[in-house]
Amino acid sequence: MSGAKVRVAVNGYGVIGKRVADAVALQDDMELVGVADVASDYRIRVAVERGHAVFASDPAAGDEMDAAGISVAGTLDDLLGRVDVVADCAPKKLAAANKDRYQAAGVKGIWQGGEKHELTGYSFCAQVNYTGALNRDFARVVSCNTTALSRTMHALHRRGWVRRARAVLLRRGTDPWESHANGMINTVVPEIRVPSHQGPDAQTVIPDLDITTLAGAGPYNLSHIHFAMVETTRPVSLDELRDALWDEPRVAFVRAADGLVALNSVIELMRDLDRPRGDMWEVAVWEDALASDGREVYLTFQVHNEAIVVPETIDCIRALTGIEPDGAASVAKTDASLGITKTFLPATT
Amino acid sequence: MSGAKVRVAVNGYGVIGKRVADAVALQDDMELVGVADVASDYRIRVAVERGHAVFASDPAAGDEMDAAGISVAGTLDDLLGRVDVVADCAPKKLAAANKDRYQAAGVKGIWQGGEKHELTGYSFCAQVNYTGALNRDFARVVSCNTTALSRTMHALHRRGWVRRARAVLLRRGTDPWESHANGMINTVVPEIRVPSHQGPDAQTVIPDLDITTLAGAGPYNLSHIHFAMVETTRPVSLDELRDALWDEPRVAFVRAADGLVALNSVIELMRDLDRPRGDMWEVAVWEDALASDGREVYLTFQVHNEAIVVPETIDCIRALTGIEPDGAASVAKTDASLGITKTFLPATT
Repeated sequence: MSGAKVRVAVNGYGVIGKRVADAVALQDDMELVGVADVASDYRIRVAVERGHAVFASDPAAGDEMDAAGISVAGTLDDLLGRVDVVADCAPKKLAAANKDRYQAAGVKGIWQGGEKHELTGYSFCAQVNYTGALNRDFARVVSCNTTALSRTMHALHRRGWVRRARAVLLRRGTDPWESHANGMINTVVPEIRVPSHQGPDAQTVIPDLDITTLAGAGPYNLSHIHFAMVETTRPVSLDELRDALWDEPRVAFVRAADGLVALNSVIELMRDLDRPRGDMWEVAVWEDALASDGREVYLTFQVHNEAIVVPETIDCIRALTGIEPDGAASVAKTDASLGITKTFLPATT
Repeated sequence: MSGAKVRVAVNGYGVIGKRVADAVALQDDMELVGVADVASDYRIRVAVERGHAVFASDPAAGDEMDAAGISVAGTLDDLLGRVDVVADCAPKKLAAANKDRYQAAGVKGIWQGGEKHELTGYSFCAQVNYTGALNRDFARVVSCNTTALSRTMHALHRRGWVRRARAVLLRRGTDPWESHANGMINTVVPEIRVPSHQGPDAQTVIPDLDITTLAGAGPYNLSHIHFAMVETTRPVSLDELRDALWDEPRVAFVRAADGLVALNSVIELMRDLDRPRGDMWEVAVWEDALASDGREVYLTFQVHNEAIVVPETIDCIRALTGIEPDGAASVAKTDASLGITKTFLPATT
């Protein structure tokens, strides 16, 4: 397949799909053949505006798109006939049925973190386990929170530092464009399931990582926050911790001292930096909240749920199709195409 | 002093002071001689309505109260001349100066958790260290979050179970009556200081408790939430954990299964139970979120910042004045007077 561009479909043009489509379009080794969806509203109209070929995920949707004046390039089956791989970003209940369809069409498939590990048997985070996904038919890019845990814990785990990791994460209550669904005001909703699923999920990426997570959700919609406490196998200094995180791809530093004191100020910086949709693909770690007490290290970090898995999905396309055997090369290529950085602002000291 | 009622003053009729005054008035071994403040607004008018004698904390305040038609019983010095002990609930910068004043008047003093341990040399949580406060001149009732940590960790620590405790707590962004001050919307503000002060503060109550805390604050005003992970010295079962918390005073259970799924639903229950001001003096632990994995136990609990230290302050009055040498007896007496419970609703199973 090397030499020719990989032909990519995105099925489901929602919060993740629309970002994946844009990111695919930026890659010089990929061709976005089209996006498929069932919607006829403003979201799919944006796909048309961006010049993406729009396909109808089912016949009824195609009729509605026609009626809404959206130019429909064909059905999902038509789209599947023209691509090598599909990034499935559809709502999660459809995943299993879609898998049969992709298999029948001889197309490789990538799902998002809402699906279970068992759907594909391979949970993917580029900088951790790219190689194992090479030339597989199917893989799952883990969820936003699991991706963040995988990246940050990998920085420590690959140095043999992690005896046991613990994290508490507070999820956003709803997504930015929603005004009611799952919305909440003036409260915190603790997750009753302990441990929460993110810990076990991170173990699908880093199998021997000893980690437990607790979770809750609060009345805000601009990303998640994690508080991690990592018991280390030996005393790890603050400088070692900072260096390990600096060496880890897609982990960036923010500082309260720069006025980046909260989730919303970091997102405002993404807007000021003219990031598409104000997206932050990196895990943002508060550098001035890093701590070590000789027994444990402490990390506080922000996860932009809408964006963090987008570069992972791009790398997963390269892994499944085998067009790039070197994970680090794929990560570097993706990062360059999107503008992923280690530090959003020049150092002032 | 035994036999006669202890004569009590409350200096500072704010969020804590107004509740302490009401609670003192409920005790059959205490007499609320009066409350002192500098305000002339609705808050101090409520004190008048409740029949509390109102004193002016400084002369200018007295003039303003007069002008506002509030009947002023005298100055703070007048009040101090008539009492055995003062519960200082004034804003924290005034504490040191007040201490000199109380000392000069020969009056015992109790401060709140905003003050440093060093101000009084004794940090108080009734069920943990009542005896050590007996007949002291001064003590500090620790803060709401520290009180909650002291109660819950004491349940485990006194059984020798705690190897190391870790907690992440998310504070309310502002108080219910405030509309601007420190208000925040749509974000989480992580605390940059790691560990946060609550861990070390809990050690002023339980000196050999190994505990670390991380903190943040979110956009809600109905109490705080804690997520605690406690590494145990031996495997502690869920039943043991539940029993230990059941045996601990002022720790109550709530269940998501009863619809108490979040901070605001628990506060709504307090309102439905006709609690004064909707107060919850207990730490509310989510029973159905308790967990044990053989190495650690996990607790999620709610802290009503406005109310939790009120019973502690009542017990501290008894300890300093020595009218009740038995801490458990004082706790039981206070709990009966306020209606403190172990379970807000009858068990359904």
